[in-house]
Amino acid sequence: MSNLPPHIEIVEEGPREGFQSEPLAVATADKIALIDALAQTGLRQIQAVSFVSARLVPGWADADAVVAGLHPRPGIAYTALYFSAAGLARALAFRDRLALAGSISLAASDAFSRRNFNRDRAGQIAAMRDHVGAHAAAGVPVTRLGIQAAFGCNFEGDITPERVVETVAAGLALARETGVVLRDLSLADTMGWATPARIEQVVGAVRVRWPELRIGLHLHDTRGLGIANAHAGLRLGVERFDATVGGLGGCPFAGHPGAPGNIASEELVLLCEEMGIDTGIDLDALIEAGRLAERIVGHPLPSAVLRGGSLRRFRAAS
Amino acid sequence: MSNLPPHIEIVEEGPREGFQSEPLAVATADKIALIDALAQTGLRQIQAVSFVSARLVPGWADADAVVAGLHPRPGIAYTALYFSAAGLARALAFRDRLALAGSISLAASDAFSRRNFNRDRAGQIAAMRDHVGAHAAAGVPVTRLGIQAAFGCNFEGDITPERVVETVAAGLALARETGVVLRDLSLADTMGWATPARIEQVVGAVRVRWPELRIGLHLHDTRGLGIANAHAGLRLGVERFDATVGGLGGCPFAGHPGAPGNIASEELVLLCEEMGIDTGIDLDALIEAGRLAERIVGHPLPSAVLRGGSLRRFRAAS
Repeated sequence: MSNLPPHIEIVEEGPREGFQSEPLAVATADKIALIDALAQTGLRQIQAVSFVSARLVPGWADADAVVAGLHPRPGIAYTALYFSAAGLARALAFRDRLALAGSISLAASDAFSRRNFNRDRAGQIAAMRDHVGAHAAAGVPVTRLGIQAAFGCNFEGDITPERVVETVAAGLALARETGVVLRDLSLADTMGWATPARIEQVVGAVRVRWPELRIGLHLHDTRGLGIANAHAGLRLGVERFDATVGGLGGCPFAGHPGAPGNIASEELVLLCEEMGIDTGIDLDALIEAGRLAERIVGHPLPSAVLRGGSLRRFRAAS
Repeated sequence: MSNLPPHIEIVEEGPREGFQSEPLAVATADKIALIDALAQTGLRQIQAVSFVSARLVPGWADADAVVAGLHPRPGIAYTALYFSAAGLARALAFRDRLALAGSISLAASDAFSRRNFNRDRAGQIAAMRDHVGAHAAAGVPVTRLGIQAAFGCNFEGDITPERVVETVAAGLALARETGVVLRDLSLADTMGWATPARIEQVVGAVRVRWPELRIGLHLHDTRGLGIANAHAGLRLGVERFDATVGGLGGCPFAGHPGAPGNIASEELVLLCEEMGIDTGIDLDALIEAGRLAERIVGHPLPSAVLRGGSLRRFRAAS
């Protein structure tokens, strides 16, 4: 009836997603403290910073200082997000501390792409061709295809599974053209349109066509369905999920202020732990990191588990 | 693969659940305003008040005034919660405005029962025998069996499906003994322990034994899994769910202050609407009622949809 994986991999994006969307500046030392705390929880991939224009995203003006200041822990891949050659160049300065790997990133919605990146599909492809070229020149592998707005779009409405398949095909064509060998495909519900049924349809349509791709999900909890959608992914055997501690984040360009951001890492870990799916993460340590994140941003974060707690302490006490 | 129902019934418990757990007193007129607003959304069952001891639950000292003051709308069943003969007597005074029907209520966890009601299993059964007798004397039918803590308990730990089956059997034995004919069984995740896997196990175990019972779910979102659990119920064909507008509520005796209460009605409606399951409810009107609830309690409620909004407006604009 379902195909639950024995183990999943959670890519923690709380530092990068969270601090770009907070209205008040977060101190560099606090960003480092959260990254270091997350590194103690059993997480193995942490997206630490975003190398973006300080003009567009003032919250990440100190990305270089954060990477320089964090205390790398063996076995953990610290990654960075960037969209331009300038961003890549900043990341390259930290080759010794960052796990560098590039992505081809396309939006399934043209309207979102125009709003978010000021490019239509052809413009996206051209930009990604340059992006891949910059990686090749720097000797950094490109390993992933990311599809944004894969489940719906505030500016374009519903996105059909066929449109997603078409966008994946365009990304794979670009990969072939540029000599990139991709194994990972990330489907992003950038604006919180997904439902479990839609996850099944889209993942199903992509998988039938490219069974060799390893599908990951990047889910937002904008309308409260994020964990139900993650569960739909688990049932389909999806083994890789992005999430953010406390539910930090939210897309600053998506147009619903105050809505929850990404699915909360600790809710996903609780779901998995209670259903016998291994994450390698210590939930109580992750909850502590979430509480640190709340203290840093100075307001409650959306994660219910930060208040409800894990079930472990109740089992121990009963 | 799944058995989604074409239509579900949502029992709105926001007024009753919500106002019992708010720390500050809510004005009688505000309670009435919310109930009247909910009655405009397409909801057909609204649990309006709780006839409980004003000493134990000060927030419901004005239950009688609320029922007297609401503006009944044809086709809507307004209900009340009560646990004692005194509560039933108060409800009986409003036979013309309330849809009265009794429940046999048992907790699957003895530890929870002792804490919440100061009774063990034998004490629960004895109290319910009296409760049924009081209904018979008043000519009010008893139609429902409710099982609290059916998925786990903060004070007892895990609750096995066998324990739930045993508790249902005890309730049905009492019904037979007292001449009550039950059709509805409500399984409550009182303290937020359920996972989709656990929902499948418990609903499955009960259904195999009593296929004639109509199962409903009362789910709390204490740990963020509430909507995923509701979706698991939908997949099993469950057609009746309790929920609260905005996610109002939370059990005051469950021991995690600040944790979300019941699943939010508007998240459940969005989930259903987006998957083609009819609820009869106007989501945008329900969201407006949720915003009214937030203004009344004076703080943000947990529902993500109150911030993320419905998808209808985005579809219309795109």
